[in-house]
Amino acid sequence: MAVGNDTLPKLLPVPGLRLATVSAGVKTPGRKDLVLMELAPGANCAGVFTQNAFCAAPVAVAESHLGASQAQPRYLLVNTGNANAGTGETGLRDARACCAAVAEATGSDAAEVLPFSTGVIGEPLPVEKITAAIPAAVTGLDADGWADAAEGILTTDTRPKGLSVSFNCDGIDYVVTGIAKGAGMIRPNMATMLGYIATDAAVAPELLQRLLSEATDMSFNRVSVDGDTSTNDACVLVATGAAGNAVEQDAGSALALALRDAVQEVAVTLAQALVRDGEGASKFVTVAVEGGLNEQECLDVAFTIAHSPLVKTALFASDPNWGRLLAAIGRAGLAELDVDRVGLYLNDVLIAERGCRAASYTEEQGVAAMAAEDIVIRVCLNRGDAAASVWTTDFSYDYVRINAEYRT
Amino acid sequence: MAVGNDTLPKLLPVPGLRLATVSAGVKTPGRKDLVLMELAPGANCAGVFTQNAFCAAPVAVAESHLGASQAQPRYLLVNTGNANAGTGETGLRDARACCAAVAEATGSDAAEVLPFSTGVIGEPLPVEKITAAIPAAVTGLDADGWADAAEGILTTDTRPKGLSVSFNCDGIDYVVTGIAKGAGMIRPNMATMLGYIATDAAVAPELLQRLLSEATDMSFNRVSVDGDTSTNDACVLVATGAAGNAVEQDAGSALALALRDAVQEVAVTLAQALVRDGEGASKFVTVAVEGGLNEQECLDVAFTIAHSPLVKTALFASDPNWGRLLAAIGRAGLAELDVDRVGLYLNDVLIAERGCRAASYTEEQGVAAMAAEDIVIRVCLNRGDAAASVWTTDFSYDYVRINAEYRT
Repeated sequence: MAVGNDTLPKLLPVPGLRLATVSAGVKTPGRKDLVLMELAPGANCAGVFTQNAFCAAPVAVAESHLGASQAQPRYLLVNTGNANAGTGETGLRDARACCAAVAEATGSDAAEVLPFSTGVIGEPLPVEKITAAIPAAVTGLDADGWADAAEGILTTDTRPKGLSVSFNCDGIDYVVTGIAKGAGMIRPNMATMLGYIATDAAVAPELLQRLLSEATDMSFNRVSVDGDTSTNDACVLVATGAAGNAVEQDAGSALALALRDAVQEVAVTLAQALVRDGEGASKFVTVAVEGGLNEQECLDVAFTIAHSPLVKTALFASDPNWGRLLAAIGRAGLAELDVDRVGLYLNDVLIAERGCRAASYTEEQGVAAMAAEDIVIRVCLNRGDAAASVWTTDFSYDYVRINAEYRT
Repeated sequence: MAVGNDTLPKLLPVPGLRLATVSAGVKTPGRKDLVLMELAPGANCAGVFTQNAFCAAPVAVAESHLGASQAQPRYLLVNTGNANAGTGETGLRDARACCAAVAEATGSDAAEVLPFSTGVIGEPLPVEKITAAIPAAVTGLDADGWADAAEGILTTDTRPKGLSVSFNCDGIDYVVTGIAKGAGMIRPNMATMLGYIATDAAVAPELLQRLLSEATDMSFNRVSVDGDTSTNDACVLVATGAAGNAVEQDAGSALALALRDAVQEVAVTLAQALVRDGEGASKFVTVAVEGGLNEQECLDVAFTIAHSPLVKTALFASDPNWGRLLAAIGRAGLAELDVDRVGLYLNDVLIAERGCRAASYTEEQGVAAMAAEDIVIRVCLNRGDAAASVWTTDFSYDYVRINAEYRT
């Protein structure tokens, strides 16, 4: 199940970056499960990675190689079907072996290869299958490979996710293209499951990292399917420089601001696409909290609602159960919350105020609001000027079925 | 669905306390849904109440009346079928009206009556139905009414919960009897859903509050079904003084220590009974964390595991998915956690260490451990001497069904 439109938009090539997607048979024979991306010499790359203490071996190696290559890796290698997480020292050796195989097939250095894995936790990575498929991947590299790659990185996702945005600045045309995967174990912390965004602009490493961190904070760090933070979350932003502009370093420049908007648009669209494709999802829910003392308390309320199993099962049932929403707001840990000032809306319908059902509210209004696939739960704390939104889904029979049957 | 034995043990009368359970037709005609408890003059009472900012009207009134009566209320009135929560000023008036009706029927003062409600949130309390049933309740008061009362306070529970413990101290026989209810919206914070424990010992108010707080902290505050803290949680401890001992004030006395053990035994048994009767529960899971720097970080890890939807669906599937357990430990927020030192056990089977599957572990061992209804997940952090356990359940299709269909 998934919510809304499932058509992958046309993904534009990013000059200076080529992709290939092949089948290595990591978990399912014949499945296209290995993606190789080649970055032009001199391309800069920024990354954000999971904050989970049990981070996967490829995350540790990718972070290390990103530093070792001075933010100029030449290749990104992504396999699905096996997360190479919970694999200890063996996992680190396996991740490095994959990098070495790419280096050998391309004449690059192993430290210039960043590895990424997603899939089952705790199983040894089938290194031989992956290394055997690398030569075909190298041969297949193509600037037009984004759509295949968007398919190749999926696990329990039901559809690929991607977006391209193009813009002109000072007479030069630029493009930003991104893809992402993830449907469960989704409560990213500084990164999504896996996300790859690239532009042909030339951007200095510090500015690139800042653009990625800001975009991640507004997108992947604002979504939750089930509150579980993956061991493998990673998101990278590549700037190939093929557009030919002078390397941009100034965060306040016209190009930096245009890039910021474009990267955020891609990141937010991808993050929302993760939620729309959430495991068992039948609703796409925006939880918008406003009138808070600061952004953090708005996020605390929003995530408490987004993580409440009682709220999520009510959403699944299209039940305008505002009592469960009030209960979630009440346990979000806000100091000195005056519940009499809290207003609660479903879409534009005021459903509760002054600690109880609004006088104007009718059950029919609530049922009508809940019937839509896209729902906005709006909480007005009425004690400050801060606001924040997160995006989430409902909890369905299918969520239980998928996660009872699937060995992540 | 529920886990384990469902026989209510014999509940012993507590001299100085009488109970009656009658039908008021609050939600379901004919259902026994109203419980009245009468405390002997001079009995002391301690209470702990929900920390949810949207606390229900009866909670606010009960806390206020407990103070106004100087911890010597004469009556406790409990209705099921309607929580009188999310009802604003009207709810407060309604709760006070119920107290006034008990006072009128018994010749006591309204401030000597503590009200408790559980059931649907956000509906007006049917005060007339309740007040109409109070005279019959007064007539029916009986020291042997515990078993009926254990039934009368239930909502989505599938079975009553209670325990009696008796002991002798310095030649005097004492009894402690308790009952509780709750199956969903269970993640108590300073109290359970509803719990009533009484003893015939004479205990001073300060010591009584301390005994209750200590017992609650070791029991109801260590269980979680779904992480949702109710708006109506309340637990009281009554000391009638009918046993005839001199009023006990000394926390270090033989009687205080014996009482502490008895009250904790009753509270822990009731708390575990809530989990065994958790909505949709097919497993009873103890999450035991040891080797922590302090108790709080042990609880952080234990509750992160207990609240993880991915862990809970794996438990439902009897899937020894230790990768999800490691992922939950890794996101519990412990500073400088050395994952290489963490050991993970299912019952007595070591399943993971040094960040990966234990060499000695076989899938057959894990499957065998998960097949039981009662499971212990044990986490050894190996960085200190603190330990803590919590009790929880799995996430099943039935949890979704119950909460998609039931309007709390």
